[in-house]
Amino acid sequence: MAQERRSGCPINLTLEQLGDRWSLIVIRDVMFGNRRSYGDLLSGNLEGIASNILADRLKRLAASGLLTRVSDPRHRQKHIYSLTEAGIQLVPVLAQMAAWGLAHTNPTAVLSARAKLLVDGGPEVWKALMDELRHLHLGAPKPQRSVLDDARAAFAAAQALEAPAS
Amino acid sequence: MAQERRSGCPINLTLEQLGDRWSLIVIRDVMFGNRRSYGDLLSGNLEGIASNILADRLKRLAASGLLTRVSDPRHRQKHIYSLTEAGIQLVPVLAQMAAWGLAHTNPTAVLSARAKLLVDGGPEVWKALMDELRHLHLGAPKPQRSVLDDARAAFAAAQALEAPAS
Repeated sequence: MAQERRSGCPINLTLEQLGDRWSLIVIRDVMFGNRRSYGDLLSGNLEGIASNILADRLKRLAASGLLTRVSDPRHRQKHIYSLTEAGIQLVPVLAQMAAWGLAHTNPTAVLSARAKLLVDGGPEVWKALMDELRHLHLGAPKPQRSVLDDARAAFAAAQALEAPAS
Repeated sequence: MAQERRSGCPINLTLEQLGDRWSLIVIRDVMFGNRRSYGDLLSGNLEGIASNILADRLKRLAASGLLTRVSDPRHRQKHIYSLTEAGIQLVPVLAQMAAWGLAHTNPTAVLSARAKLLVDGGPEVWKALMDELRHLHLGAPKPQRSVLDDARAAFAAAQALEAPAS
């Protein structure tokens, strides 16, 4: 993708590097769902990403330095994907997209719960999430707060609200 | 695009509504370059957008409620495009993309000048820019500060620095 470089504008270069929307969907799943293998990314994806698109986007994201890929020590045929620091720094971009989506699309209540945590929490929560991602993906020390745990709890609470009373 | 709706996740729905990178390039040019006609958008685009892609993306952006299109009173065959409130609220998304591009791509100094203004200024400047866009696109009162004038000055200053000494 780097060879395209149609202009030196930072917004254009960001869009060139991110590629299409499937790339950001994959980043979202690695980031918020901590799905780290091709199999988990394929089976867990809500939007039904096609297997060939997933394989292609993982290759592109690794080539453009947003993900790294290492062999899984437990299964030599498999790989584990991790966010790079540049990938982790996409948190504010995704948080602003989540904010826009909450305001202007009609998301479901359950799938909005995690987004609301990011949006309502603002830059302080994004920073805490980035520290947690540096722990999970780059081996940095574990921070005190787990935003991902809070997000899972918010998701579960929204699901419980939605469930029919028994 | 709305009919795709592959999930109710607000990030996915934002990406579905924005479409591909050319849509955001067009939004950027309308927003920061105040290019309001097909001809200005085509001739002024730095990335050399193709005429058929521009026409298609303008149609999609109008269909998804990010732009409106009205006949130009001076040329009945021509149209003027304006951002909607939803389009204006993409300022923070584009600002975060600019921040990421400044940090992780290798943008040119001249094309970074305007982005730096947005990034260094933070949410206060985004808010001022959104007020200015509401004036230019939606007929709201003119705010005191013009972020677009500041951006033009920053761009000109960066160009002057780049120019060979005579």
